[in-house]
Formats: sequence, C-alpha cells, structure tokens
Amino acid sequence: MSAPTVVRTEAPAELSNPGLVVFFGQSPNGWKMTWALEALKQAGAIPDYTILEVNLTGGEQFQPWFEAINPNCKMPALVWNRPDKPQFKVFESGSILYFLARTFDKEFKFHFDDVELEQAMLDWIFWSQANLGPNQGNANFWYRYTAHLVEVAKQRYLTETERLYKVLDDHLEGKEYMVGGKFTYADMIRCHFWCGISLSPYPSLKAWHDRIERLPIVLDALKVPAQDLVTRIKADPDLERQIMERMRKAREEKEQAEPDRATGDKE
Amino acid sequence: MSAPTVVRTEAPAELSNPGLVVFFGQSPNGWKMTWALEALKQAGAIPDYTILEVNLTGGEQFQPWFEAINPNCKMPALVWNRPDKPQFKVFESGSILYFLARTFDKEFKFHFDDVELEQAMLDWIFWSQANLGPNQGNANFWYRYTAHLVEVAKQRYLTETERLYKVLDDHLEGKEYMVGGKFTYADMIRCHFWCGISLSPYPSLKAWHDRIERLPIVLDALKVPAQDLVTRIKADPDLERQIMERMRKAREEKEQAEPDRATGDKE
Repeated sequence: MSAPTVVRTEAPAELSNPGLVVFFGQSPNGWKMTWALEALKQAGAIPDYTILEVNLTGGEQFQPWFEAINPNCKMPALVWNRPDKPQFKVFESGSILYFLARTFDKEFKFHFDDVELEQAMLDWIFWSQANLGPNQGNANFWYRYTAHLVEVAKQRYLTETERLYKVLDDHLEGKEYMVGGKFTYADMIRCHFWCGISLSPYPSLKAWHDRIERLPIVLDALKVPAQDLVTRIKADPDLERQIMERMRKAREEKEQAEPDRATGDKE
Repeated sequence: MSAPTVVRTEAPAELSNPGLVVFFGQSPNGWKMTWALEALKQAGAIPDYTILEVNLTGGEQFQPWFEAINPNCKMPALVWNRPDKPQFKVFESGSILYFLARTFDKEFKFHFDDVELEQAMLDWIFWSQANLGPNQGNANFWYRYTAHLVEVAKQRYLTETERLYKVLDDHLEGKEYMVGGKFTYADMIRCHFWCGISLSPYPSLKAWHDRIERLPIVLDALKVPAQDLVTRIKADPDLERQIMERMRKAREEKEQAEPDRATGDKE
C-alpha cells in the first residue's frame, strides 16, 4: 500500500488490526520500524504486523485521531492490539525499538541478555535519536527543502552531520556491527544520502553501511510497504528530480496560503 | 567546584573516585544528571557521587581521555568505578537516566515496576532527547549565540520549540507529573528560559515547571556542583549581560583564529 492521497478525519479501520500496527513514513525513522518488524517476524518472534502510511503532505498527522496515538504528531507511532487488554501505544522511534526488543525479542536475537552490552546498544540508540536524526533532518532542510538560501545555516548542519559520521566511522573501525559483533537494534540506522554527504571519506562507516544494506532481512524490509525510495532513486536517475519538483510545488502552494511565514527571511 | 580554566591533557584524578563519576555542564542535559543523582542519593539508592566539570570553551571534551568516555565528545558522560569489575561507561543523557533507573533505583522510587508506565516514561525521555533538547539548543544558537542574524533560521527553531512546549502543555493538562502521578526521570526536563520563550502561554506546562523547580530534591540538586546559572541570573539582573559579553569575546577570538568559518554567511 502507498501513502493515502486524502486526509482521513477518522482513524483508518486497519488501526484495529490484531497485533502490531505501525504508522510509517519513508525516512530514516520509518525504516527503523520496518527493519525491526521484519527482523522480528523472520525470527518468529511476532506473527505479522500492519504498516500504515500517513498523508504527511496534507497534515494528516495533526488529526485528533493521530494525535491520540502520538502526542508529538510525527512519524513513527505504534499501537499494539492485544486480545484481553486495552490497546497499548508507544511513540518515538528509539522508544519503539526498545519496546519491541524487550517485549517480543525474548531470545535476544537482535539485542543482549548481557546488561553491559544492552546498555551500550541503548547508548547508541539514544545517540542516534538525539544527534544523527535531528542533524540529518536539519541538513536536509537547509540543503534541499527550503527556498531560503542561507549558507551559514546549511554549513552549520552539514558540518555537524559530517562530525557525527566521523563519530560513527571511528566507532566502527575494526567492527562488523555497532555493538557486540552482531546485527542489533543499534544497527537500524540509515545514514541518508538525501542530505548530500558522501560516505566515501568514512571507510569503516561506508563498509558497515553497505554490509547492513545487503543483509537479507534488510533487503526484504526495504520492500515494506513498497520498495523504499533510496533504492528506487538509485535505479531511476530522474526520480530525484521529480520528487524535488513535487516538493517545490507543494512548498509554493503552502507559501501562497501562508504568506506571512514565507517572508520570514526578507528583512 | 567550578569549571576548570585549563584544558587537561590527562584525565583528572577524580575520574577514579569510587562509585559514580559524572561529567557535567550547566545545561538542561547537565541538570538531568544532578537531579537524578541527588534524587537517588536522598532516597538512599546510592551512597554519594562525583560531579566533574569540563572546560567546554577550551575544547577539553575533544581530548582523547574524554573521547574514550564519550565518543560523541559532549556533555554529559558517566563512569561507574566498581570494586571488582572494570570501569563501566555510559553516554547520552537519556541513556544515563535509564541506566541509573534500572541499575540503582530497585525500589522504583522515581520510575515504575509496571511495564506500561515504564514504557510511557521512556517515550517521554526519548521525546525530550530527540525533540526538546535539539530544538532548544538550535533556538539558543540562532537567538543568542551566533553573530549571524538569520531571521528565517531563528524563527524556524523558535517556532518548533513553541510547538514542543504546546505538546507538553497539552500532555500536562490536569496532571501533576509527566507520567503516573509521581516525580520520575521523565520530569527531569528543564524548559530553559535561555532560548527566549516565555512559559506564560502554556499554563499547565508553567504550573508543572514551577512545581518541579520547588521540589526539595530539585532545590538541593540545583546547588550541585555550585548554584545553577538560572537561579543566579534570576537573582542578579546584570549576570546575563556579563555572560553574553564573555561569550561574544570568546566568539570573536575564535573567529579571528578561524576566519574561513566566520565568513560562511557572506555570500
């Protein structure tokens, strides 16, 4: 299924599907979800799961039914429909990863029985949420999404993202995986080419990135709910241009609707 | 003790103090540490702790001895010196909070035995690290720290921080504390006036903020390692001006030393 083209004013019926229902978007935080869910499914830890997309362009995430699931009105968000208990909700991608680990991954397939290794995994999950995610997002914004050409802002967030890639590169030197020599929730990070930084200057990071992207679990997960955008852009050189053109049009429509906000940089 | 005026090229001797040693800075992430440690100490869950400040202005956090504790080279970072085991290290403020909870707070004084409440607490700790922290930090930078007057960047991060305060305000309506009706690690957030946003338009958030700041544990913790800057600035109207003047001089010295980086906004 693909992202809905209308904004639903009532929760979709699939929200009541038994088991795990996850609201997803094509982004590094969204991929954490499909990678973890597919890993758990293939390991036999969960029977199946439902992935639902939200019309982010239309602002569906601000609908009251969605805000009741994630008060922060962002992707991702999880609900767990259990047979004999009330629906349980979790938000924030890092919190969802750890919830999945401790609730379903009882055989420690992708995390650790050892408390020290588990803590090291948590350190990196928190690090990713507090550093890599926000800075890649800000780099994307100033490099790609905004019409405001503010060189000092673009450089600030690209430079910080490069620093974070160096932190990962140093950490991964001589390692196959982030923590404890196996694929865990701490490896469910995607350094995203979208923000315009090449991984070539970071050999250990690049080797790890390519290793993760070739894992059978990850290749399968990248087809959920449809083939991921990164893979599709790499296969179709014109797709990036088409996406940017769609985003430019959406931005112009928004600026015409909200002229006050659009002129914030004119002084 | 106060922040050192020199950059130490070797780890300070106090790094080997028995028990918990935490590297601290006067910031919302630093206060999470002193609030949690003081709470655990007053509850009898830990005997005592060591707080060490780092010369951030001088770049001491990039020294190899500090990078070995926190590969991200930022505040805070924790080491645990145990009698019969190797030194154990934890980094990222949210990860440290949860480490303290599950390692020392065995009687659930400031967290929960109930898995659902514990998960809700974790959701908000992750939310704070991924949203409130980075956006308050960016708002501070564009509002206060940089010489580059970029209105569109300042507005972007102030607007997002205001949205986050509204998320907190909505969540706290009718509640005394963030989760489960008691003071927990999820309440160890400080909405920081430094980024220039008044809490007055957010009545539930303001009531909670003032309630937390008046808790005896928090009042004691704010004196560790010395009276916190917010309290001191409120008592001395000239202190904010002095701090900003010191920061301006430090920035000018840095810009003279690195002229290429200082002219990033000139095109």
